[in-house]
Amino acid sequence: MAAMKNKTGGPFNRPHFESLLKRRFFFAESFEIYRTSAAHLADNRGLYDYGPPGCALQANIINEWRNHFVIEENMMEVDCTVITPETVLKTSGHVDKFADWMCKDPAKGEFLRADHLIESVLEARLAKGTLATGEKASKSAKLDEETAKEYREILAKIDNYDGPELGALIKQHDIRNPDGNGEVLPPTPFNLMFKSTIGPSAAAPVYLRPETAQGQFLNFRRLLEFGQGSMPFASASIGKSYRNEIAPRSGLLRVREFLMAEIEHFVDPDTSKSHDRFPEVSSVELPFLDKATQLSGKTTTRSLSIGEAVKTKLVDNETLGYFLVRIYHFLIKIGVEKDKVRFRQHLENEMAHYACDCWDAELLTSYGWIECVGCADRSAYDLSVHSKATGTPLVVKELRSEPIEIEEWQVSLNKKLLGPKFKKDAKKIETAVESLDQNDLEKLASELSDKAVISVPTEQLADGKMSVELSEELCTIKKVKRVENLREYTPNVVEPSFGIGRILYSLLEHVYWHRSQDVARGVLSLPVLVAPTKVLIVPLSNHASFQPIVKKLASRLRAFRISNNVDASSTSIGKRYARNDELGTPFGVTVDFETVQNGSVTLRERDSTAQVRASEEDIVEAIRRLVDGSETWAQVSQRLPAFTGQSTDE
Amino acid sequence: MAAMKNKTGGPFNRPHFESLLKRRFFFAESFEIYRTSAAHLADNRGLYDYGPPGCALQANIINEWRNHFVIEENMMEVDCTVITPETVLKTSGHVDKFADWMCKDPAKGEFLRADHLIESVLEARLAKGTLATGEKASKSAKLDEETAKEYREILAKIDNYDGPELGALIKQHDIRNPDGNGEVLPPTPFNLMFKSTIGPSAAAPVYLRPETAQGQFLNFRRLLEFGQGSMPFASASIGKSYRNEIAPRSGLLRVREFLMAEIEHFVDPDTSKSHDRFPEVSSVELPFLDKATQLSGKTTTRSLSIGEAVKTKLVDNETLGYFLVRIYHFLIKIGVEKDKVRFRQHLENEMAHYACDCWDAELLTSYGWIECVGCADRSAYDLSVHSKATGTPLVVKELRSEPIEIEEWQVSLNKKLLGPKFKKDAKKIETAVESLDQNDLEKLASELSDKAVISVPTEQLADGKMSVELSEELCTIKKVKRVENLREYTPNVVEPSFGIGRILYSLLEHVYWHRSQDVARGVLSLPVLVAPTKVLIVPLSNHASFQPIVKKLASRLRAFRISNNVDASSTSIGKRYARNDELGTPFGVTVDFETVQNGSVTLRERDSTAQVRASEEDIVEAIRRLVDGSETWAQVSQRLPAFTGQSTDE
Repeated sequence: MAAMKNKTGGPFNRPHFESLLKRRFFFAESFEIYRTSAAHLADNRGLYDYGPPGCALQANIINEWRNHFVIEENMMEVDCTVITPETVLKTSGHVDKFADWMCKDPAKGEFLRADHLIESVLEARLAKGTLATGEKASKSAKLDEETAKEYREILAKIDNYDGPELGALIKQHDIRNPDGNGEVLPPTPFNLMFKSTIGPSAAAPVYLRPETAQGQFLNFRRLLEFGQGSMPFASASIGKSYRNEIAPRSGLLRVREFLMAEIEHFVDPDTSKSHDRFPEVSSVELPFLDKATQLSGKTTTRSLSIGEAVKTKLVDNETLGYFLVRIYHFLIKIGVEKDKVRFRQHLENEMAHYACDCWDAELLTSYGWIECVGCADRSAYDLSVHSKATGTPLVVKELRSEPIEIEEWQVSLNKKLLGPKFKKDAKKIETAVESLDQNDLEKLASELSDKAVISVPTEQLADGKMSVELSEELCTIKKVKRVENLREYTPNVVEPSFGIGRILYSLLEHVYWHRSQDVARGVLSLPVLVAPTKVLIVPLSNHASFQPIVKKLASRLRAFRISNNVDASSTSIGKRYARNDELGTPFGVTVDFETVQNGSVTLRERDSTAQVRASEEDIVEAIRRLVDGSETWAQVSQRLPAFTGQSTDE
Repeated sequence: MAAMKNKTGGPFNRPHFESLLKRRFFFAESFEIYRTSAAHLADNRGLYDYGPPGCALQANIINEWRNHFVIEENMMEVDCTVITPETVLKTSGHVDKFADWMCKDPAKGEFLRADHLIESVLEARLAKGTLATGEKASKSAKLDEETAKEYREILAKIDNYDGPELGALIKQHDIRNPDGNGEVLPPTPFNLMFKSTIGPSAAAPVYLRPETAQGQFLNFRRLLEFGQGSMPFASASIGKSYRNEIAPRSGLLRVREFLMAEIEHFVDPDTSKSHDRFPEVSSVELPFLDKATQLSGKTTTRSLSIGEAVKTKLVDNETLGYFLVRIYHFLIKIGVEKDKVRFRQHLENEMAHYACDCWDAELLTSYGWIECVGCADRSAYDLSVHSKATGTPLVVKELRSEPIEIEEWQVSLNKKLLGPKFKKDAKKIETAVESLDQNDLEKLASELSDKAVISVPTEQLADGKMSVELSEELCTIKKVKRVENLREYTPNVVEPSFGIGRILYSLLEHVYWHRSQDVARGVLSLPVLVAPTKVLIVPLSNHASFQPIVKKLASRLRAFRISNNVDASSTSIGKRYARNDELGTPFGVTVDFETVQNGSVTLRERDSTAQVRASEEDIVEAIRRLVDGSETWAQVSQRLPAFTGQSTDE
């Protein structure tokens, strides 16, 4: 991959960038003061704390997310618990399937993620041009073009291999732990959920949720009712989720505790192909990287209007297409660079167990392309499994315009006999019989007519058995016709899912640059909308006459809910501005001796360092408009007189 | 306790209130659809999901909290991880001391919280007037006045007993499990933290944080640096915390996963008694319930200005006093009733292990007085213990106006000998020696001069020992004089800590009432500031001509970021308004045929049901002012013509 360029076209300098983020406390590793002394905290990687600017940036991104999605589209926001009982996640498939493939290096006692191991080893071989890695590389045979091509193809579809396939690749290409060159054991699945127990008896297993989605599915009935039954509708949720990653790396890009914002858009499967606001967005062009291109071992994107993409079936339907555009607009609005976004389609084996199609919005960073938003079609998977597990119908009922006649198998139990015969078990048997579907009933009907008795699987009964025998006397199954006035269906779900930490980090890379003369003078060109603090107020010195003016100015801005910060430290104004360029503060106001005389102040814009001077009144009004977006800096700097009297940026 | 009155002076009707909250999905028990079928979810009580109105109310309370505290006082907000390594919480004292006393009823296999058990049994005996509870009560001897008085005294100071004392009370008063009347085992401590492990080896124990405070303490150095060293300063954090309560009860009032908002105000211990904004608040009167009153077995509050309270030492200092007033103002602003707030001082044994004084803001609910905000003086406890455990100085350094001469013990190691002799252990030994304090050094100095060798406790060394012998050759300790230009101190911490869920629930009780004619027509008089949705838009019918008007109106309000909801369902306008009274929506706009003719709409106010009619333009502007607080309904209804043409509230 070519080296990433920064905002101004120069090379992106990660060490300077990281030093800035750390120095200005955007974020830092959690429990930092414990890490130097306690070696065992090595197990606690992948956990980060946000300092004041990171925390404010995160809050502003979330705020805009709420405006852009929840308020604009009237979504129903919910806040569900992180702690989730095992039974719920067993049903959803997470207990059995939410795992990564892990290899142990027995010599080092280290655990490695199988796909990442292969990636790093093959990439290193390609970079060095030999058939081995590490110290052996120099002595090893040269990499021939055919093998190099094979490696590139493996890398392009690395997300498509399952555990045994990864194991085979490791064997075939003699892939070893780069740290010590030891052979690794075959991949085994490692469940990514954190486990705990709840209650004083410690008998009830729970997990920390790996996604916010399940809480939304479990509340489907209440949400449908809250929306007075109208379809389609969307719920949304913002909150922490947890994944016990095997080997966290790349800072904020792979962490174990993270903030997610997820939407579940519930839609009638019969009409899910269309979306009533699709015409508004159909001409928007997006950069796509589809499945077929990746499987051919390539990673070139092509730009296409979403209208065209849906028409040609590249994107399955309008609903999915509408959300891809809305996601794109959100990312651009908060400051992501246009040419560092792409939409990549998931490969078959890469998809989560619940998804039937998925497009990721990926952002280009110095670590490569990073999945920041997933947009998955979960079909009716989740609602169906929870409905089946609980016996609760999670369906929409709609009056049919024309009633239809239905022929179906119907089962009935002789309750007069059932109660006395099975006592406490009767309820469980009823539930089991009610949950039988049409296929089950068809089979059982013929069994019953053949043998006059059937066996039905149940929860564990008093005699310890997991099924019950029911005779003809107790149970009848017959085919009946009925007129159906209601249409009943389980909605499909389209799920745009945002990893806020990944977006935040990638955004910071995109807006970072440095003044041309000085690599140490970094700037974060965050849009006003998301900048942690909007205004810096700097008194020229700590002269007493400035204090009341500064105080009044700060409180006037606060009254408009414009966050501001006073820097009355004794360093030069230039240094104080430089500090705030690093913090991404878009505007600066200087209070000087002229302010005391005539009430005028200067206003500086971060990116251009240009300044204007006007009355405090006019400057406050200009800031108000700049912050609410009703005026741009270009307009303000034309309208108000330029200030060049005293350069403060030196 | 006398029955609680509702907002309009009538009796508070909890069943109606709860039915409203459930029906309108303010919140519901988590995993509700699993609770009916899966009996083992009984262990998963104390977990709640917020539906759309509850979630919006919560977001608005948090938003106002951020404005009132973080922005107004320039606090540094941080967002730290929930997952916390055991070593951190071992240091903070939570692993050893963060526990409640629990009694097991061996017959039922039930676990009971000891203090709650005593409370419920004694309260029941007082209510029934007998010396026994449950079925036995009727056959039992009457409760004499002396015993009743004793019971009341126990109840008044129930928070002051430790485990053995609770055990003694249970024996002495023959207190049994009300469910089955079985005797319970003596109280044992039960740690309230959820435990898990991190990383693939499962070797590293972690806990879910029980408070957000520790993350703030661990980041103290970075925060001090971010604020360019100026003192005092405050950090703040909003996030989930977790407590594995023994027996959750009372809905949102005792839950296992909850949202907290916490402030850590770091202050110089020498000047902590004063606060520079105290004069602004000194005349504010607050209702106090102090320690002495409670220990005398009473619960009467007295009203006093905070200035007087600090002067008379009822409240220890200005800083604490200032925060009590700020807390009070916040609660009133979001809609809490004035006469349902009190400030109660903690009793000695009730205080958390880290606190040296604590006042709770309690709110009166139908469950009694509930602790909703704690305001604790944690002194220098946390910073000191973390500093000691990590060897990291967590101190403020200030230039002294006049240097002072200090005489102190100084220890030095002969590093030339230390390295070769102890190899890998040398670093551990250095750390151990550096962490010795003046008292240790004084003792060791005399030991060293007596015996020429000393023993210093260390982390475990290569030979398995937990200490090391150091001879005179390796180590010297002597008294030295030095001139000190810097003053170094560990700040004290004052911590206002808000339980958002408890505040939200109590607030809902305070704002609930019903229209005089009809107990089923509930109203939530939430202030505009926190109301989940600000405006309901109702078209008179589903006539096609209303649709574009409604759409435009909704989008105009959205442009001002005013949340609104369109109800175009086919029920009567009165019913649609009634639904939104229950949701606490303060304003309603009706679009009717007159709107189509002349562009005028009506505006209805929730509490009075009064209406005005004016042009769409004027109504939108009125709403904008009502929402940003620049105008009241009284002003709007005087300014704009009343609408009485068509009563929509029937």
